[in-house]
Formats: sequence, structure tokens, C-alpha cells
Amino acid sequence: MIRISIDAMGGDFGPEIVIPGMATALERHPDIRFVIFGREEEVKPVLARHQALSNASTLHHCDVAVRMDEKPSQALRNGRWKSSMWRAIEAVKTGEADACVSAGNTGALMAMSKFCLRTMANVERPAIAGVWPTLRGESIVLDIGATIGADAQQLVDYAVMGAAMARSLFEIERPTIGLLNVGVEEIKGQDDVKDAARILREIPLPSLEYYGFVEGNDIGKGTVDVVVTEGFAGNIALKAAEGTAKQYTQYLREAMNRTLMSRIGYLFAKGAFDRMREKMDPRKTNGGVFLGLNGVVIKSHGGTDALGFASAIDVGYDMAHNKLLDKIAADLTHFHKSPVGAAFQDETESAAEVEIEQQEK
Amino acid sequence: MIRISIDAMGGDFGPEIVIPGMATALERHPDIRFVIFGREEEVKPVLARHQALSNASTLHHCDVAVRMDEKPSQALRNGRWKSSMWRAIEAVKTGEADACVSAGNTGALMAMSKFCLRTMANVERPAIAGVWPTLRGESIVLDIGATIGADAQQLVDYAVMGAAMARSLFEIERPTIGLLNVGVEEIKGQDDVKDAARILREIPLPSLEYYGFVEGNDIGKGTVDVVVTEGFAGNIALKAAEGTAKQYTQYLREAMNRTLMSRIGYLFAKGAFDRMREKMDPRKTNGGVFLGLNGVVIKSHGGTDALGFASAIDVGYDMAHNKLLDKIAADLTHFHKSPVGAAFQDETESAAEVEIEQQEK
Repeated sequence: MIRISIDAMGGDFGPEIVIPGMATALERHPDIRFVIFGREEEVKPVLARHQALSNASTLHHCDVAVRMDEKPSQALRNGRWKSSMWRAIEAVKTGEADACVSAGNTGALMAMSKFCLRTMANVERPAIAGVWPTLRGESIVLDIGATIGADAQQLVDYAVMGAAMARSLFEIERPTIGLLNVGVEEIKGQDDVKDAARILREIPLPSLEYYGFVEGNDIGKGTVDVVVTEGFAGNIALKAAEGTAKQYTQYLREAMNRTLMSRIGYLFAKGAFDRMREKMDPRKTNGGVFLGLNGVVIKSHGGTDALGFASAIDVGYDMAHNKLLDKIAADLTHFHKSPVGAAFQDETESAAEVEIEQQEK
Repeated sequence: MIRISIDAMGGDFGPEIVIPGMATALERHPDIRFVIFGREEEVKPVLARHQALSNASTLHHCDVAVRMDEKPSQALRNGRWKSSMWRAIEAVKTGEADACVSAGNTGALMAMSKFCLRTMANVERPAIAGVWPTLRGESIVLDIGATIGADAQQLVDYAVMGAAMARSLFEIERPTIGLLNVGVEEIKGQDDVKDAARILREIPLPSLEYYGFVEGNDIGKGTVDVVVTEGFAGNIALKAAEGTAKQYTQYLREAMNRTLMSRIGYLFAKGAFDRMREKMDPRKTNGGVFLGLNGVVIKSHGGTDALGFASAIDVGYDMAHNKLLDKIAADLTHFHKSPVGAAFQDETESAAEVEIEQQEK
């Protein structure tokens, strides 16, 4: 049995999408038990339409729902302890649930998750990891927007955590890791990425294989299982790819509607188009995983539909089922105990000390 | 008459692609005169096949060609003063040419351009600007990889230069400018982007309209005419979009080949597919513009074909014809003379002083 806590009020459509999504996920994984947090008067009527789901769920009423446009600090002020989002996260902390899923606003969800669950030992900052459809299958990309900028140690942490997620999700023993970089040599400013590369080459971990630098177009190619970058570039890459996919779909639609011949062609090839649409369907890869926290939290896209929300629950299910947190913790400990990791840690700590001393001057 | 200097040895295929590309560009713009730099024994035989082009060109023999895998520092050491790349750039400096086009390696071309042409007054660092096909037409994105990282002043400079390029290329009087950002509020580390936004809101320039922040998916939508970001994220965005487009094309090809029905459908809709392919054709938007230098230098994709190289020449032609440099210089002067710009300049300078003082402690 996997227990999943749900923030029923998150997303652009709240329970109307969340509840049917849960019903779909339950059909796929009958061993899920749900703990739902939300406004009873809104959740109950929708839940009543799904008998099996009702039987597999416990509903806790919460007055407060975090709004989609609330700033993280506002959300914390207004919704700590009592909002459906907070309480869904808290259920993971108290051990009531194995994973939490919310389609609520990303900033608030991350702020509350950090506040409630805290970051794991040896992890400085959490990251958000996404699943990216590629020509080879699927890859994991992180950080797609938890934090802007990352130093070498954080990038290495991301690599270790991303590898653990790949092992949980794709069941590969030793995922390949690429550091996202630009192709131009000798460009200034990528010291952190270069330092991270050095550490990853020397890392003695059996849980990942460092491939080297990859570029933006390698993500879609599926050159590596895990692509590591800081949150600004990661988020921009993800959204730029989304934008391009939409553009392509739009061009295709226009082209197919243009002449009688193309419309006939479309009818013949409809099966092929459907297949292709399914391959590019963003709902299938919905679900950003917050990595580096003492608990599994999954962020669903706010504008997704029931099928998309079900995918986010699937991800939470897989992460809990495959014991993601244990894998991450073991790998991080292994790394930080290794001579390279320990030396690196000391280096970073003394650098941090110098920085603090400088600031105090 | 527009005079364009060509590095005939650049790119993966050298003169075999460059010369036919020039011939195509000449058909489109019969008032171009070319100054070609390259190895005579390789260039002459190809040139001989194109009568009109031969008549419109002067060929200068150069022994040295910069290799595609040469590091910028190596290229400078081996090829300064004498390589085809250097001499093509130099022709712009001496006034022999109005613009230079090369498909050679980006790092070397930028290093040589900076060394030979120097950055314009008031510009700290040059940027590379690319034309991005969008649902609304075309937009300009910069920096797509000249430098990693950019402070507020550099981002503002990019905005002014990108606007001048949009005015030259799209003939819009007041292009809209968006600053690339991530959607999450209150995230740390985007101080430079926020400061740039503040300056752009207060800027009194008649040559651009500041739209606000845009996200990665806004690029493909064509939300603004010019998207401004630092070179790491810009390069990643560009390549991620390229990767996605390739993925889509591959899926479409597979889908259309899969069944008899889909193959028949393809035949009917072939015209539509061709139209769509043309819309997404990366060759049509080939040509990165180096902005911020005392001269127009265009970087063509190294792996492009003759049609792609012709597009890069087209861009150079437009930039020279529409007096891009004068526009940039006027706008930058206007900005830096304005109260906001001057205050900002002082601010940045004193910040730089503080930084240097701190380092000296």
C-alpha cells in the first residue's frame, strides 16, 4: 500500500480536476490510499461521483486554500498549519502519507515544503526535477526552477539526487549524467559547472556514470538519462521546449486545414497523428519532483486536466514505491564520506567561511 | 551597393558551401559586392562555376584557415593578421566591407572580432543575437552565447542593441522588449534581471517599448519582438528549442511511415507538409549577429548548406543596408545621456569601485 496526500484545492480548477485525476490513478494502482485536504463543501460532491475512490480516501476539511497568485511569503503567512497545501505536506512529515501531490502554485509549495519537511542532511538546497520526453525515451532534467544559480557542490548534489530518481523511475542501475553547458570553449563564468564536472569525474559512486557536458539540443535527443543544470537555465529550457512543441502543433494544424487535399490526407493519416500527439502529450510527463527534502512532494502543472494530474500521482507512487528518499540519502552519504566528497566539502566550507568573513568586514 | 567580406574557409564544408551560398545571395541582392578571403587553390575552382558571382567578387588569398575545433586563444595565436577569418573581419575595420560573414567557429570569430573591431563606446560586452521563428512571425533573441552571465547594465545594453536590430530587420518603429525570467516570484538570485527591468521601465527611449518579463514559452509565441537574457540561458533556450523541433520532425516522420493508411495520407497532404517544413526551416533564420562591436559581423551555423549561408548573408546585407551600427550608437548615446542612464552608469561605476576595493582588502 502506498499512501498519498492530496492538496485538493491546488491548480486552476481545484477538485473538479484533482478528484477525477485521483480516480484514474487509483485504477492504475489499486493499492493507493489517499488522504485528501480541502474544503469539504467543494470536495465532497465531486468525490461522491467516484465510489471506488471514496472508499480508498480519507477527507480532512481545511478552510484555507493557497491561491495560485499568492507569493510564497504570503502563502506561508496565510496558510501555514491550516491550508490544504500545508496539511498535505505535513501528512508526509507525520508519516500519514508516503508522498504528497499538489497542483498549487510552485513557489508556495516549495516554500511550505522546505519549511515543513526541511532539507535532507548534506543537501544545501532542494531542486525540482522533471521528466522530459526524448527520442530515446525519457530523461530527467533538474533543477527546473527551484532556485536561480547553483555552485559546484549544489550541481553535484543535483546529479546524485537526479541519478537516484532515474534509478527509481526508469529502473536503470547506473544512469548517465550530463552537465548542461554551452558549446563555446574558454568562455568566462562557467567555473561552477567546470568544478562540478571535475568532482563528478573523480566521484567513486557506483550509482551514476558521469557522461560529460551536454548542450540544449542533447536533452531532446536523450543523450543522457539525467541532465543537471541550475534552476534559471533549466526552467528556460523547459519552457522554450514547450513553446516550440506548441508552435509545431499549431503549424501542423494550420497546414492540415489549408486545402482539400491536405484535409483528405489528414483523414487517412489520423491514426498516425493521434499516435504522434500521444508521444508529445505533455500530460504524460506531468509532475515535477521536489528533491532534497525529507519527504516526497510532487508538483503537478496547475493548468493540467485529470489525466495530467493522474500522471503526477503516478510519479509520486513510483517515487514512494521505489524508496527514492532512501536511495538519495544512501548515495549522498556515500559521496560525502568519500575522499573526493569530503575534500570537496572542506573546500566548500572554508570558501563559505571566507565569504562570511568578507561580508562581516 | 553593399560590400560584404566573406571568410570562405569557415564552416564544416568551407568553399563548397560558402561560394554557392554567395551566388544565391547575389541573385537576391544584385547590388552586393563580395570581398572573399581564403585559400586560392580551394576557392577558385568553385568560384569559377559561378560567373555572375565571380564578376561581383574580389578574392584575396590567405594561407591560414581557423579550424572549427580551435580554441579562441589558439585561433588568435595562429590566425591573427593572416587567417581568412581575421582578414574578413579586418576588411570591415578598414572600411573595405560593410559587413563580414563567416561560418567559422563561434568562439574564434567572437574573439577575433572583439580584438580587431573593439566594442562600441558605452558597451561593456558584445552579444550574439539570433532570429527566432515564432507564431507571430519572427523575434530576436539575445544573448545566445557570447558571454555567460550579465549584470543589469549589460542586459539594458542588450535591450537597446536588440531593439536597434529589430528596427533594422523588421522595420518596426518601436519594438517591444521582454526580459527572460522564470515565473516563480520571490526567488533569489535574479537581482540583475529585476534591476534591468527597473531601468527599462524608467528609460526615456523612443526606440523601444519595454513589455516586462517573459518566460521561455513566450519566445515561440512571439509575445515580444526582442527577448533579452544572458548568454548561458539564451544558448540553452535556443538549443533546447532546436532539439524539440528535431524531435517533433522525427516523430512525424515515424508516424507517417508506419502504416499504409498513413503513407497514403502523407501523399495527399504532402503540399501541407512541405509548407510546414518550410516554416520551421532553420536555414531561413540562420545568421547570428554580433552586436556591440564597431562593425557588423554575422556568424553562420557551421553545419548549414548553401541556402543557409545565403540567409546569413541576407542578414548581413539588411544590417548594413539599414545602418544598424548608427542606430545602435544613437540609441546608446541617447540612453547614457538621459538622467536615468547617467544615474545608472554612476551607480554601476561606484558599485564596481566598491567591488574592486573589497577585493583589494
